[in-house]
Amino acid sequence: MIPEPLLARLRDGRRFLLVSHANPDGDAIGTGLGLARALRGAGRQAVVWNRDPVPAVYGRLPGASEMHVGEDPPAGFPAAFDFAVVLECPTPDRTGLEAHLAALPQLNIDHHLGNSGYGDAAWVDPQAPAVAVMVAELLRALGVTFDAEAASCLFVGLSTDTGGFRFANATPRAFRAAAELVADGASVERVSQWLYESQPEGTVRLLGSLLDTLERHGADGRVATVRLTREMFARAGAAPGDAEGLIDVPRSIAGVEAVGLLREVGDGVWKVSLRSRGSIDVEAIARARGGGGHRNAAGFRIEGALEATRAAVVAELLAATGGTP
Amino acid sequence: MIPEPLLARLRDGRRFLLVSHANPDGDAIGTGLGLARALRGAGRQAVVWNRDPVPAVYGRLPGASEMHVGEDPPAGFPAAFDFAVVLECPTPDRTGLEAHLAALPQLNIDHHLGNSGYGDAAWVDPQAPAVAVMVAELLRALGVTFDAEAASCLFVGLSTDTGGFRFANATPRAFRAAAELVADGASVERVSQWLYESQPEGTVRLLGSLLDTLERHGADGRVATVRLTREMFARAGAAPGDAEGLIDVPRSIAGVEAVGLLREVGDGVWKVSLRSRGSIDVEAIARARGGGGHRNAAGFRIEGALEATRAAVVAELLAATGGTP
Repeated sequence: MIPEPLLARLRDGRRFLLVSHANPDGDAIGTGLGLARALRGAGRQAVVWNRDPVPAVYGRLPGASEMHVGEDPPAGFPAAFDFAVVLECPTPDRTGLEAHLAALPQLNIDHHLGNSGYGDAAWVDPQAPAVAVMVAELLRALGVTFDAEAASCLFVGLSTDTGGFRFANATPRAFRAAAELVADGASVERVSQWLYESQPEGTVRLLGSLLDTLERHGADGRVATVRLTREMFARAGAAPGDAEGLIDVPRSIAGVEAVGLLREVGDGVWKVSLRSRGSIDVEAIARARGGGGHRNAAGFRIEGALEATRAAVVAELLAATGGTP
Repeated sequence: MIPEPLLARLRDGRRFLLVSHANPDGDAIGTGLGLARALRGAGRQAVVWNRDPVPAVYGRLPGASEMHVGEDPPAGFPAAFDFAVVLECPTPDRTGLEAHLAALPQLNIDHHLGNSGYGDAAWVDPQAPAVAVMVAELLRALGVTFDAEAASCLFVGLSTDTGGFRFANATPRAFRAAAELVADGASVERVSQWLYESQPEGTVRLLGSLLDTLERHGADGRVATVRLTREMFARAGAAPGDAEGLIDVPRSIAGVEAVGLLREVGDGVWKVSLRSRGSIDVEAIARARGGGGHRNAAGFRIEGALEATRAAVVAELLAATGGTP
C-alpha cells in the first residue's frame, strides 16, 4: 500500500527536514516530533520546521522546545537537507513556507481527500485515521524501531485526530495502531496528563463564564448560543488561545443540533464560530459572510451590536437546522 | 488463559441469568447487555437482572429498557435459569441480591484484584482492562458471533472502564479488543453520541455555576475548591444526579493536585467530594470524618457554615498535598 518510490527516498535520505501545516494541530505536532525522534534514533539528521509555534497544550511533548519556528529557514537551509517531508498538507501552501520549500525536493505524506499528489514522491491515504498512523506504518516498513518517547508523540497525533478515539475515524486501523504504539512504549497516562489534565486555569474559568451566557433557541431548543467578551477574558485571566475547544461543551447538550459562539475581538467586532451535527451545513453560512471551514465546523467575522449579531446568527442556524423560531 | 470449567458451563448453558453490581457503571451495564444479546443471538435465553436502575447516560444502549431491575427476582426465578453469571463483582454481595442468588450456581467473571474466586466456576483476570474485554474474549472462544449492537454494548464497557482510553489500563489488549469490536460493527459514533453528546442541559449549566466558585489555595495553588448550593441546582434546572463527574473539570487544571467539592444537601449540611492525583491520599481524610472511598477519590458528610467548612477542607487537603497555606 505504501508507494515504493516514497519508501526508497526515505530509505536513502540522511538529512531530513520535516514540515507541517500552519496553525498546527496535535497530528501535525505529534507526527513531526515522533518522526524526527525515530529518524535520529536510526542515525539520521532531522529538523522539524513549522511556521507557527507549538500550541501550549502540546508544549510538553518530547522535542517540542527544539522545534524550529517562524518564516526564516533553519541553519544551513536548503543545502543541509536532502528533501522536505511535508506532513498533513493537502497543498504545499498550507505550510505557510512554500516559497522556501520550493528549493528542496518534497515528499508528500497526507490523509486529506483533496490532496493533489504533489511532490517528488507522495503517499496520500484518505482512509488513514491520522498522519501519525501512516508514519508509524512507514517506520515499521522501513525497519526503523522507535523509542517510547517517539511512540508517545505519534500516539498524540492519533489520539487528537480521532477526538480521543471518539470520532468515526476511530476505525479498527486506528485502534490497532494505538495497540502497537502502546506496546512500543507510548504512555497513555503521560499523554492524558499532557492533553487533558494540564488545562490553563484561564480556560477553565472562561468556560464557567461562557456557560453562564448559554441560551437555547427555537421551539425545541435545537440551536444554542454562547458568547465571550473581552471583559470575560480579562476576568478569567485568559489568553486568546485559551478559548480553544470550549464550544464543544454546549455542543454536547442533548438536543442541541447547532451552536454559535460569539467572541468579541474589537469594538463591535465579533468572531463567530459555528458547530453542527450530522448533515447540518454551517460552512455555507460562514462562506456567505466571507468566512469558511467545514460542514460541521466553520466561522466568520461580523460587525454589530451584540444582540443584533446574536439574533442574526440564531436566525441562520435555525434555518439550517430546519427549526421553527 | 480462560479456565476450561467456565467455558464448559457456558457452552452447556441454555438459560442464563446475568447479574452485576449495585450502582452499576458502564462496564456493568454494557457487558451485561452485550453478553445477553450475543447469547440470544446464539439461541440461548438470557435475562439481565441488576438491583439498581440503568444510569441515564446508558439509557440508550440496546436492551437497556428491558433490563430487570430491583430486589424482586425476575419471572420463573430460580427454576427458569441454569445458573447466574456474576459480572464485575469481587464478592457476591456486591450484587445487592446475594440472598436470592444463593439459589443458583454462580459463574464468576471479574477483573478486580481482590476477587476471592467464589462460585461454581470462575475467571478472575486483574490484567483485563474491563470485564467487557473478558466477555468478548469468552464469546470468541465459544465461537459465538455477535452483532453490531452487542459489539457496541461491549465497547461501552471497555470505553468507560478505561476513561475513554485515557487511563493506564488502556493497554495494548484494550486497544486490540476495541479494534476487534469496531470490526464486528461497534459504532464509535453512536457510542460517543450516547456517552458524551447527550448531556442534560442542567449538567452543563451547573458546570458553569460550579466554575464561577473556583478558588485556588496554598502558596502555589495546588489545592482547588468549588461548591454547589441547592440554589445553584434550582437555577440550572439540574437534578441531583446531574452533578456526576463535574469535579473532574477543576481537577484538570495544570498544577492542581487535589480538589474539594462542597455540595449542599440540607441546611448547613454538606457532602464533600475529594479528588487527588498520584500518591496524595484523600481516602484517609474522608475516613477520619466517617466517609470513605479510594486513595484518589473519596467523600464524606459534614455540618457547618459554608466558609468554616471550606476552610476545614482546604486545611486538610493542603496538609495531604504537603502545600503551605
